[in-house]
Amino acid sequence: MDIEALKARAPDHWMRAAAIRTLTLDAVAEAKSGHSGMPMGMADVATVLWSRHLKYDAAHPDWHDRDRFILSAGHGSMLLYALLYLSGDPEITLQEIRNFRQLGARTAGHPENFLARGIECTTGPLGQGIAMSVGFAIAEESLRARFGRKLVDHFTYVIAGDGCLMEGVSQEAITLAGRQKLSRLIAFWDNNAITIDGKVDIADRTDQPKRFEAAGWHVQEIDGHDPEAIDAAIVAAKADPRPSMIACRTHIALGHAAQDTSKGHGALTDAQQLKDAKAAYGWTWGPFEVPAEIKSWWEEAGQRGAAEREAWESRLAEASATRQAEFTRTMDGTAPKKLPATIKALKKQVAETAPKVATRKSSEMVLEVLNPILPETFGGSADLTGSNNTLTPDLGVFDIENRKGRYLYYGIREHGMAAAMNGMALHGGIRPYGGTFMCFTDYARPAMRLAALQKVPTVFVMTHDSIGLGEDGPTHQPVEHLAISRATPNMLVFRPADTVETAEAWEIAATQTTRPSVLALSRQGLPTVRTTHKSKNLVEQGAYVLAEAEGKRQAILMATGSEVAIALAAREALQKWGVGTRVVSMPCMELFAAQDEAYRKRVLPAGPVRVAIEAGCRMGWDRWLTGERGRPNKADFVGMDSFGASAPEGDLYAHFGITAEAIAEKVKALL
Amino acid sequence: MDIEALKARAPDHWMRAAAIRTLTLDAVAEAKSGHSGMPMGMADVATVLWSRHLKYDAAHPDWHDRDRFILSAGHGSMLLYALLYLSGDPEITLQEIRNFRQLGARTAGHPENFLARGIECTTGPLGQGIAMSVGFAIAEESLRARFGRKLVDHFTYVIAGDGCLMEGVSQEAITLAGRQKLSRLIAFWDNNAITIDGKVDIADRTDQPKRFEAAGWHVQEIDGHDPEAIDAAIVAAKADPRPSMIACRTHIALGHAAQDTSKGHGALTDAQQLKDAKAAYGWTWGPFEVPAEIKSWWEEAGQRGAAEREAWESRLAEASATRQAEFTRTMDGTAPKKLPATIKALKKQVAETAPKVATRKSSEMVLEVLNPILPETFGGSADLTGSNNTLTPDLGVFDIENRKGRYLYYGIREHGMAAAMNGMALHGGIRPYGGTFMCFTDYARPAMRLAALQKVPTVFVMTHDSIGLGEDGPTHQPVEHLAISRATPNMLVFRPADTVETAEAWEIAATQTTRPSVLALSRQGLPTVRTTHKSKNLVEQGAYVLAEAEGKRQAILMATGSEVAIALAAREALQKWGVGTRVVSMPCMELFAAQDEAYRKRVLPAGPVRVAIEAGCRMGWDRWLTGERGRPNKADFVGMDSFGASAPEGDLYAHFGITAEAIAEKVKALL
Repeated sequence: MDIEALKARAPDHWMRAAAIRTLTLDAVAEAKSGHSGMPMGMADVATVLWSRHLKYDAAHPDWHDRDRFILSAGHGSMLLYALLYLSGDPEITLQEIRNFRQLGARTAGHPENFLARGIECTTGPLGQGIAMSVGFAIAEESLRARFGRKLVDHFTYVIAGDGCLMEGVSQEAITLAGRQKLSRLIAFWDNNAITIDGKVDIADRTDQPKRFEAAGWHVQEIDGHDPEAIDAAIVAAKADPRPSMIACRTHIALGHAAQDTSKGHGALTDAQQLKDAKAAYGWTWGPFEVPAEIKSWWEEAGQRGAAEREAWESRLAEASATRQAEFTRTMDGTAPKKLPATIKALKKQVAETAPKVATRKSSEMVLEVLNPILPETFGGSADLTGSNNTLTPDLGVFDIENRKGRYLYYGIREHGMAAAMNGMALHGGIRPYGGTFMCFTDYARPAMRLAALQKVPTVFVMTHDSIGLGEDGPTHQPVEHLAISRATPNMLVFRPADTVETAEAWEIAATQTTRPSVLALSRQGLPTVRTTHKSKNLVEQGAYVLAEAEGKRQAILMATGSEVAIALAAREALQKWGVGTRVVSMPCMELFAAQDEAYRKRVLPAGPVRVAIEAGCRMGWDRWLTGERGRPNKADFVGMDSFGASAPEGDLYAHFGITAEAIAEKVKALL
Repeated sequence: MDIEALKARAPDHWMRAAAIRTLTLDAVAEAKSGHSGMPMGMADVATVLWSRHLKYDAAHPDWHDRDRFILSAGHGSMLLYALLYLSGDPEITLQEIRNFRQLGARTAGHPENFLARGIECTTGPLGQGIAMSVGFAIAEESLRARFGRKLVDHFTYVIAGDGCLMEGVSQEAITLAGRQKLSRLIAFWDNNAITIDGKVDIADRTDQPKRFEAAGWHVQEIDGHDPEAIDAAIVAAKADPRPSMIACRTHIALGHAAQDTSKGHGALTDAQQLKDAKAAYGWTWGPFEVPAEIKSWWEEAGQRGAAEREAWESRLAEASATRQAEFTRTMDGTAPKKLPATIKALKKQVAETAPKVATRKSSEMVLEVLNPILPETFGGSADLTGSNNTLTPDLGVFDIENRKGRYLYYGIREHGMAAAMNGMALHGGIRPYGGTFMCFTDYARPAMRLAALQKVPTVFVMTHDSIGLGEDGPTHQPVEHLAISRATPNMLVFRPADTVETAEAWEIAATQTTRPSVLALSRQGLPTVRTTHKSKNLVEQGAYVLAEAEGKRQAILMATGSEVAIALAAREALQKWGVGTRVVSMPCMELFAAQDEAYRKRVLPAGPVRVAIEAGCRMGWDRWLTGERGRPNKADFVGMDSFGASAPEGDLYAHFGITAEAIAEKVKALL
């Protein structure tokens, strides 16, 4: 690459972009780790985007109507940090740049949304950023339809690398975006032809422009170091009615000895090479130093959006009080005041009528009362709408011609759905929920983890939550999936036993602000076990005494979901034999673990033998089987220790020994 | 669809294909569940393929040089069962067809490879079949290069539906196949324009032919009900030097009232509609009845390959005794006799030199001695070759011009890699291993589960297995991933502490025949803890006493991997305080759980306090902390209860309290 020619073509631009490159080199050298090459390659694109197009106000990085900027190639985090620092973000200071990748710094190895307001999302794992960007763009369309262009009117920009585009989730994302004609979504492909293992060519020869066109995108190909070409491409992309992909031919680690090599992907820390690169740039200042003129130019760019923000604030202030309040409530994720009463009314009605329904149907009953009072919910399913029971009549289908619709047919794209939901939740103003079979937690897993890490209240409606699914067989029967979700930090996993517990679980899930929820729901019909109405939300405590022992308490049965009714039947048998048996329903282990020790001991006192029942694997149960520290119990577990099988549900429960009889026998053996 | 016109166009073909359709209708009606429409839509394609092209011998469904047929759209399992039954497979009898989806039947809801030899792989979760088919085709290329066309010379055919093509993993699969020019791979797309939620159009408008072309495939579009067009397309596909996609326009549930509707996707059990469909077909026989003439024709088709098989057997018999033995050993997955001695020699050398290396480097040291004596190994990495340490010098890179290469640059495709490896293992003759970061277990997860379910010995080399990864931060630091893999039935999860344990773990993994393995390996350097050479493989017992208590045994520390050395340091401190402390290394919980109770009690006797140390979540440890049933212990855990953070490794271990000091303090608090 002829650096001199680049400099000569656009000398002012060159130095402004060079500030990004040199900050990157310095920060990585200081940290002795990181990824230098990507920010150096994409500095020109980022400079043009941030200074001429991106609607943002550096002093107010979380202003609602800003354009969103998503660095899907998250390893290039110094690109984002340099942009935020240069343009005057209040949180990403020079000290933070110097502390790149150190404990407690906001400038983590990969961007983490919870460390600074200017970071829209966490984009370490490749492909997640571009998949979340689709959710951001959907959220914008949805909210614009709801609140009007005066309040919502922005673009979502995303930078994706070769890695993002090779990950399968990117295909789910771009085909969904293409189908939905998300014209406000503009993706830059950092086409540098290099990955960690060498040239992209050794692993991939996909014609990416053709692939995006096949997905319904507008595609342009440009020189990613030519500021005018970049600018023109963005102008064209904004004008096109389709989502846009701008393929930017770039040079990784531009101007460094490692340029255009896989070495350039990583940490470029050699002092002499660093010096040589700066010399080639014409950069004469010291480490972390940015001359005042360049810094000022960047800060002016960062203030460019202040007027737009103020105008927007005026428009908001001009709206009716009701509208202002509703917009603010929606964007803040505050639940409407009517919610608790609505849930209580449903609980009361259900306790009285005691329907025998699958909890996936219970969930639909809850959604039928929730969706009308929560206009921020946005439902969907990965092509299992009728099975997941996720669509209620009031929602309408989100589509090109109906952006007010609040239900999305995600297609057979569990991963893309989960990531898009995260994007919506991160955007704000949307409370997304989406359904698939519990077993396909596996497909959605990378995005589910990111929901928990990013602290967004995405709700995963996972139906067909055990061998109770029946004939479809072991590929569709979760065994380890409750354990998987429970093992994930910050995740709430609910497995309600009936409609009352489902309503309580939904009430908790729908009011979270920093934790995602998994609702594990049955395919098969279940009796109502909570037939005495209680106003209090018992699921909030995670576990509670559902049925007390008669006579001397000799046994405690713990169960969740579809096995609670089986535990109650086992209790009947045991009581007949004179064995006083308590049944504890444990719909949410995480919330039970968060109760104080006194409550936990009241629910699970030392002494009686304990048997836990769950049509899943044992992992996670030993904690509750063995009691608080030093207070042991004789205990056993009834559940699965293998994959399931294909057969009718009843046959499977009998075959795998998850029956009232087997439970009662286990208890007797322990006494 | 004009059924009469179809019948008139090819009357004989029509009735042969109708046998598939009617068996499907009858089996689904009998089971009252299942998926009728797909087999009814693809019956014509399958009939032409199986009777004119597929090289198979129904009486010997696992003959090594057969063509492979993979039903990626696995819900259409009755298509496969009907084909096997009709053509005379010895295991898929009429009784099995009648028992479709019943407990103990070989005819599960989705095809399960372990239930009948004629079922190549388990294809319930969408997209897995097409992704595994890439592995089958790679295996064929690799083995053909190694053993020559006389012994290995076959095609891989796969039927994929819209669901398979919407799943992201299909993109990883087809771009990998395109890059590698897998000309022996032929995919049929069942283009019926229908999914469960309705028309495909509501969720997807991708131009699939263009997408496949962008990935380097040969593409044809045909009428999927025209036998001559199907035949011609297969002929052209076989001749083309690229992988081939044949887009077949079909009608789901052809000829039934539910034709071309999403209802047609599911179980069509209405008696009158079933009768009407059969009448439309001109099918006058009773349920499950196939007239002798049609059955005979199918059985002749099933015998078509007998001569080819015999000729192949002759060619094998003509090969040298050495070559025959090696081919047979390779296809049987039997380890070479030299293996144990090779591992022992490495262990001895390492115990003497006691290197301080990361276990990912240890793994490389093992592979350097294993790969030369195991020509069936086939390595790779999802673009982290230098980090996963998976490439040894002798392998060579598998590529279009070098099919003898035994290392594949999979690109940034963890999911596609894992599925392709499963395909290779299922094909036979290949022992695949592949690397990525442990955290990206998440991406590979659906295929990892299928490895366990399908009972194939795929080896997942998962490096950077904890916060020890350091600066890349929480998105790259596994916390719950050991628990996830351990929760999966039939999976072996190894977390070796040093090079000796890594060698032992690899010895076990490389000799499995029915269980996949996860090797969790450190990024950071670890001291050799097994400095006294023992010939015996101690990892085989799952856990063992690494360091005995001096004086009265008051505490037992249990640890895995990188925390074993920390436990040893804690023991030092505790012994100084006079606390007799045993250290147990537990590199494989599954193997320890499989030991007899006497051994488990010898390793973990009741009495001493117990502390487990692992830089992951606690889930899974309580079982070992609390002792055998009724023999409790005071116990605690040192590890992670949150996501990690971005910082240098040492800072993180200190920050999260995983230190010798913290362990010693916990022990003291319990005494």
